[in-house]
Amino acid sequence: MNGADNLVHTLLAGEVDVCFTNPGTSEMHFVAALDRIDRMRCVLGLFEGVVTGAADGYYRIAGRPAATLLHLGPGLGNGLANLHNARRARSGVVNIVGEHATDHVGLDSPLTSDLEGIARPVSHWVRTARSAGSIGLDARAAIEAACTPPGGVATLALPADAAWTELPAETPVPAPGSQRPPLRYRPLSPEAVGAAARELCGPGPTLLLLGGQALRAPALEIAGRIAARTGCALMSEFYTACLARGAGRVIAPRLPYAVEPAQAALARFRRIILVGARPPVAFFAYPDKARHLASPGAAFFTLAEPEQDLQAALAALADELDAGAFAPAGVADRVVASPAALPAGKASAEGIAAVIAALLPDNAIVVDEAVSTGRAFGPATVGAAPHDWLAVMGGAIGFGLPAAIGAAVAAPDRKVVALEGDGSAMYTIQSLWTMAREGLDVTVVILANRAYQILRGEFAGVGAGTPGRRATDMLTLDRPHLDFVSIARGMGVEASRADTLDEFARQFGRSVSRPGPALIELVI
Amino acid sequence: MNGADNLVHTLLAGEVDVCFTNPGTSEMHFVAALDRIDRMRCVLGLFEGVVTGAADGYYRIAGRPAATLLHLGPGLGNGLANLHNARRARSGVVNIVGEHATDHVGLDSPLTSDLEGIARPVSHWVRTARSAGSIGLDARAAIEAACTPPGGVATLALPADAAWTELPAETPVPAPGSQRPPLRYRPLSPEAVGAAARELCGPGPTLLLLGGQALRAPALEIAGRIAARTGCALMSEFYTACLARGAGRVIAPRLPYAVEPAQAALARFRRIILVGARPPVAFFAYPDKARHLASPGAAFFTLAEPEQDLQAALAALADELDAGAFAPAGVADRVVASPAALPAGKASAEGIAAVIAALLPDNAIVVDEAVSTGRAFGPATVGAAPHDWLAVMGGAIGFGLPAAIGAAVAAPDRKVVALEGDGSAMYTIQSLWTMAREGLDVTVVILANRAYQILRGEFAGVGAGTPGRRATDMLTLDRPHLDFVSIARGMGVEASRADTLDEFARQFGRSVSRPGPALIELVI
Repeated sequence: MNGADNLVHTLLAGEVDVCFTNPGTSEMHFVAALDRIDRMRCVLGLFEGVVTGAADGYYRIAGRPAATLLHLGPGLGNGLANLHNARRARSGVVNIVGEHATDHVGLDSPLTSDLEGIARPVSHWVRTARSAGSIGLDARAAIEAACTPPGGVATLALPADAAWTELPAETPVPAPGSQRPPLRYRPLSPEAVGAAARELCGPGPTLLLLGGQALRAPALEIAGRIAARTGCALMSEFYTACLARGAGRVIAPRLPYAVEPAQAALARFRRIILVGARPPVAFFAYPDKARHLASPGAAFFTLAEPEQDLQAALAALADELDAGAFAPAGVADRVVASPAALPAGKASAEGIAAVIAALLPDNAIVVDEAVSTGRAFGPATVGAAPHDWLAVMGGAIGFGLPAAIGAAVAAPDRKVVALEGDGSAMYTIQSLWTMAREGLDVTVVILANRAYQILRGEFAGVGAGTPGRRATDMLTLDRPHLDFVSIARGMGVEASRADTLDEFARQFGRSVSRPGPALIELVI
Repeated sequence: MNGADNLVHTLLAGEVDVCFTNPGTSEMHFVAALDRIDRMRCVLGLFEGVVTGAADGYYRIAGRPAATLLHLGPGLGNGLANLHNARRARSGVVNIVGEHATDHVGLDSPLTSDLEGIARPVSHWVRTARSAGSIGLDARAAIEAACTPPGGVATLALPADAAWTELPAETPVPAPGSQRPPLRYRPLSPEAVGAAARELCGPGPTLLLLGGQALRAPALEIAGRIAARTGCALMSEFYTACLARGAGRVIAPRLPYAVEPAQAALARFRRIILVGARPPVAFFAYPDKARHLASPGAAFFTLAEPEQDLQAALAALADELDAGAFAPAGVADRVVASPAALPAGKASAEGIAAVIAALLPDNAIVVDEAVSTGRAFGPATVGAAPHDWLAVMGGAIGFGLPAAIGAAVAAPDRKVVALEGDGSAMYTIQSLWTMAREGLDVTVVILANRAYQILRGEFAGVGAGTPGRRATDMLTLDRPHLDFVSIARGMGVEASRADTLDEFARQFGRSVSRPGPALIELVI
């Protein structure tokens, strides 16, 4: 057994049994160990951003971390944007990044880099294994860091010599699953529960602003009881790692993205109770707009932070309020459109949303990177079949297709629907090949407006006036048109194009009723 | 005039008049300034790795830096691997990275990150502009850093408020080209010249190992005269930023990549004179192989380092040796294969090389990311028409297609030939769209062996044995096959597939004789 074998055994002992990989020479001993030791599912990505985004999506659905396998500092660099997103989502990820052998780093050969320096801005935990003998403890610490609630990005650099060096014969081999770290929530604060209960019973409108694990179905149900008991409003942060939605679920409308609508939505609240959420701020700064979105007079109270057990915090609050007997308020009714009632003709955001709402399969996972077009989808899909909604948490686009891979690997029995802008899809378009190779049950919908549409809005929003020729060129994807059907087929994914809502409904309906990956380019 | 306008004026004053862009909200004022002010050529990339790799390729051919426009820390992250390559190539690059407004960073909104922390591992120079008023000086310092020989990666973070704030009316506007920084080489050392001359006159085989600017045609010619005068051998480092090759050029054979052949090539030399090169080391560490490639008894002498004027150093050395009157040794003869003599049938590395050698147009630029297959190309193309050869300097794949963009923008009158492995092409495949949009004169040849072929060799090389099922799966790209013709057409690039050398010769010949982008997938 060498260090690499021990690393694989330790990962499996910590119930890390999926590895999204894009290996290189310095990781070949780790690859060989994955060969020798059963149980690790290895999923190859053709680009590192695919690998790290998949790990983010996997954690949100599986609730435990996957490993990534990356090649040296530059390979980690290629995965950086999606690790930024994972860090913001508080997704647990165990990055294994191959590093040159310890005595090779000093030679400064071409691929040498400041690996830890690259890792640090996107990691909660960073370490370089010192030797083959330390790898077991190093990997265990990495898994613990990744599993510390609500989750974290742990990056372990694996020098090639630490991987290839043989360990003494008596080195113990931990059994698979024997070392899964316990969930170590930071304890709840009874004072915070009491204070929140008092505020909820006070006069005037109060908001329970929910984030993180408070947006899972069981927590939402408790929040619904609290709303029924106290009359408070519920809302979720704009970005949600995994929001339980659809018929039968308590509705927590998303805070709007844009400054003015967000201010309008929050204006009436004098008290805002935060449950795994933060005081809402503008996504970007604009010269003449507010940075803080709540009413200037609003007071914030923190019931619990993401590091605490948010569902337990809501349960304690419900207890304190004697809300347990109340039926949850704001439960979504099922809205079923008959096929005949589906919209037809030219695509509009509302029409697309209506089609998706009508045809979304039960228990689907929706990965939302539809950016500008997708903002209309939330309200329209409230009455769809129950589903989970995953959004890019760090705002770095290129998240959607990789996250769909991770979600599909985590839940092979659920349909994943990836709603993608054409601009954002192109950042990690290589994902399609992995979907084909693994036969993942993903329907990709490309909303092809042939522009960085959001930026056209932002251009005006920041007060830059009206884009001229050069600026328009930088915000437009129409010269040439991207043909996503051709691109998808080139990567082995079945694909079709829809120019109208009726075509879209037919293609979407067919795709979600059949297993395996498919792509629909919807021209809007 | 606001800060963004001043930044554009300052870039143009420093002769930075090409900007490879992938903008976002925080850069909209900079985009608006590019709109208002003429003269900056803006080239959009659909992914940041395209943008940064293009800047690397541009510098190698244009000899002056381009700017990049990137969106916040994660956008910079996506460009990191190719900035690593640019840093290793010592290419001058001026990164303009949009940052949140100064008073917004502290709010920690989703896209907030440690931007300088992400930049530092790949940059020679990093700064965040403090205000609109400082931008002129900041940008000038960035350009100077990028232009300091042999070139460097300068990263300037541009807070949104520094971009949008108006400057006093009396702020001077520098004229285009008025502030190009002078070339400030570190002075040569007469002692080093004298010592090198003495060593070259000593007994036994001596090697002049060339790197960086010593591989441009005028420097090589001087090296050839020195070789003629002293009998020394010439060799170039394995990776070369821009190597002048082909008929009429002095041959500087590349040091082989693999440890054993490199050791064999260097074994006879007791003295190695370094001209912009470093003592050669193994690219990767292997358990039982040497790290240093020269013979253990070899002594190194540094004539000049990359920060010095390498051509002047060679000229001084030639003077010292009275080599000026000697005709250069080792000049490549033109080897012209008649069309009838071109190889046919099943593709082999030698056959591909012969086709390329025969059909390469005069003064072409070859971007080499052919990895495993491409190693045979060097010797075979020595007698081709004169050309420049660009290799990935940092070893991070995904360099080739972006660099071809940059080279084609820098030299619109030259044909660029990008030789790509199928694995490496997929890292930055979005490049094809930019080639189509800009009508760049690039022939892309995908050498489709449907594997990470180099890793199959490395797997054995590191002593990991024979890959089993899981490992083979991670090193193989054949499930499904990538259809590069379909992918290229999807991005607007004309494409064809060749299964034999005769088909390849026909398609390659047609492509290089016509302007504009084209892709050939050569199945091997």
